[in-house]
Amino acid sequence: MRQSQLFTKTRKEAPGDEVSKNAQLLIRAGFIHKEMAGVYSLLPLGLRVMKKIENIIRDEMNMIGGQEVSLTALQEKTTWEKTGRWSDEVVDNWFKTKLKNETELGLAFTHEEPLTALMTSFINSYKDLPCSVYQFQTKFRNELRSKSGIMRGREFLMKDLYSFCRTHEEHEAFYKKVMHAYHAIFERIGIGSHTYLTFASGGSFSKYSHEFQTLTDAGEDEIYVEKNKKIAINKEVLTEEVLADLGVEKSELSVEKSVEVGNIFTLGTKFSEPLNLSFAGEDGKNHPVIMGSYGIGLGRLMGTVVELNNDENGIIWNTSIAPFSVHLVSLCKDEVDIKKCDELYEMLKKKGVEVLYDDRDSRAGEKFADSDLIGIPVRVVVSPKTLAHDSVEYKKRTESTPSILKIEDFLADVH
Amino acid sequence: MRQSQLFTKTRKEAPGDEVSKNAQLLIRAGFIHKEMAGVYSLLPLGLRVMKKIENIIRDEMNMIGGQEVSLTALQEKTTWEKTGRWSDEVVDNWFKTKLKNETELGLAFTHEEPLTALMTSFINSYKDLPCSVYQFQTKFRNELRSKSGIMRGREFLMKDLYSFCRTHEEHEAFYKKVMHAYHAIFERIGIGSHTYLTFASGGSFSKYSHEFQTLTDAGEDEIYVEKNKKIAINKEVLTEEVLADLGVEKSELSVEKSVEVGNIFTLGTKFSEPLNLSFAGEDGKNHPVIMGSYGIGLGRLMGTVVELNNDENGIIWNTSIAPFSVHLVSLCKDEVDIKKCDELYEMLKKKGVEVLYDDRDSRAGEKFADSDLIGIPVRVVVSPKTLAHDSVEYKKRTESTPSILKIEDFLADVH
Repeated sequence: MRQSQLFTKTRKEAPGDEVSKNAQLLIRAGFIHKEMAGVYSLLPLGLRVMKKIENIIRDEMNMIGGQEVSLTALQEKTTWEKTGRWSDEVVDNWFKTKLKNETELGLAFTHEEPLTALMTSFINSYKDLPCSVYQFQTKFRNELRSKSGIMRGREFLMKDLYSFCRTHEEHEAFYKKVMHAYHAIFERIGIGSHTYLTFASGGSFSKYSHEFQTLTDAGEDEIYVEKNKKIAINKEVLTEEVLADLGVEKSELSVEKSVEVGNIFTLGTKFSEPLNLSFAGEDGKNHPVIMGSYGIGLGRLMGTVVELNNDENGIIWNTSIAPFSVHLVSLCKDEVDIKKCDELYEMLKKKGVEVLYDDRDSRAGEKFADSDLIGIPVRVVVSPKTLAHDSVEYKKRTESTPSILKIEDFLADVH
Repeated sequence: MRQSQLFTKTRKEAPGDEVSKNAQLLIRAGFIHKEMAGVYSLLPLGLRVMKKIENIIRDEMNMIGGQEVSLTALQEKTTWEKTGRWSDEVVDNWFKTKLKNETELGLAFTHEEPLTALMTSFINSYKDLPCSVYQFQTKFRNELRSKSGIMRGREFLMKDLYSFCRTHEEHEAFYKKVMHAYHAIFERIGIGSHTYLTFASGGSFSKYSHEFQTLTDAGEDEIYVEKNKKIAINKEVLTEEVLADLGVEKSELSVEKSVEVGNIFTLGTKFSEPLNLSFAGEDGKNHPVIMGSYGIGLGRLMGTVVELNNDENGIIWNTSIAPFSVHLVSLCKDEVDIKKCDELYEMLKKKGVEVLYDDRDSRAGEKFADSDLIGIPVRVVVSPKTLAHDSVEYKKRTESTPSILKIEDFLADVH
């Protein structure tokens, strides 16, 4: 896309009330717009990143057999009363609203209840199981404070997956598949080496649940980590028993600040029993379905990436989720040179390269500063000087010194 | 996808309280799930249709230079007070909610206000214009009644586009582009011949606005139509003056029930003035930006398609938005035949054909009934009988008699 057509512009300063680094950088570079604390709109660059994150997650969810749906935000009281979660004393972050006739509705902060209720229309027999269902859907959470930028939103996009199994063994096998899929997701997004599978408290149906915690000083959590063994434990479950289970000594662990980028949880029959989701087994008897839930907050993930990958000049995107692969920066002023640069842009598009073309009539310094702030992985500068040698100046965002490449060599290599 | 893996099943009856044909069929076929009146979740088949509709619209929006964003549902009172639309007496379909500290918030029923406010961060000079911004975003509307299935939702996905121009002439030119894009969208979705550009009341800034009305008895609107000239007039503007403008006699018009599938509207400075969206012109003076808004409700569009295209056996999807292109129905029972059918399925997938493979162990009658109800455009039956002649039985959903095709001929033609 031509940058002259992009309606967003970079800005020198983020809003004064914005204290988190992720939101400061994303606002300054024109990825997001702050509507209010914890509520951010996605601008074209931000939406492109979000779609790439979404596609990576979708790909991994489909590979483990997940079926995509899209549930609603509006929720009926009756469904949630059955599990005891309608009450504001039990769930303290509901947003509630009302129909014209005064019927109370809630805005979903999660979707265990409506999906479990929905599945009663489709699950009757052991032959209908196992199955798993996921969505990318906006959650609403009435957080008391929201100061971590897009890492703790009041309205945010979440991928939530739910599994439905016949037995605990079947559930365990699927749970492990999700664990692998989550590792793959964080690896592909580029935060794999900073992300720890972390033991957290389970529920009535399993000893542990698991969080995926990414180490960053911007995190709101604290976990105990043994980096060599890649073992991490949530503070809340740090007991002698757990240390013994995992074969580590407390002295080996260091305390680290972290962000929970994903979690996986055995639900057992916590939701299937009150909502009557059961199946007729091969034994002819009725059994409650064994469930699991598995979440990833996409905004939080994007914020975490920005917290991890930035320098004093701006964001540094990993190729897999960058808004564009190449930032083509033109310093050409005369018509013939501009035409050559336009041709290069067209050739890149034709090759299927996602390219942001800075065709604006601005100073070089401003263009370089914008390019660093936006953080596209590869910057390619075309100037009268480079064109005189049929070349471009090529620099990765992670490098400080550019190299000169022949245009044909650059075109042969780029993707 | 293998139908044995699809978690949804067809059902004989829709819920008793569901009076609209579109929702009845879509629920029975497993495309949507009713959460409450006017609130429907999308199941895997429904989500596939929705994504196809979305992609057609996105394609046309990108072609006219629209830039995609994603704004939030949660809305601050202060922004809407500036245009006078916060009051429930002015806007009667708000859903309102509250933060923990009792601050009132609204759930957006449209996005003129927040987007206009947002654009003040980016539009300063005549050089920043014209531009246009769109999104696919969930709207919340607190409708008093909601009995038209997915054609009048309380929560629904909408494509809303907004344009920002310097002059009325520039606005008019863009408005015409959108008009053409909308015609193209309804044509591609398969309801072009039933859809009329309809003259409706304008505002302070233009004599008319335009609705795209699709003729169907399920419609909640009534319009006056001259079918040969393809002219339509909304009841509310049927005056002598309008008839003269359009060069039709009232006697030539027939009254028809219809659904408003899209609308385009000149906003002028209605929002830019109160929200201070202005630009410095070439004349050095400040001018308010001239705006337009352009909406398409995706659920309503899907519902309208179903109302138009169905028979006593079920839905009839147009290829462009069908959940799958081919319904491969196996009647094979023995291993060798099943293997051949599996191979055909794999070959189709390899060719990039979107195929739903009914590999279930069910009776032929049940499979045919499901296939008709779901409404995939092409049904291909593989049975021991057809395999004996290296053939398949091929039938379009719109045809009643199948034909026999050699497998190789079918594979060469299908896409």
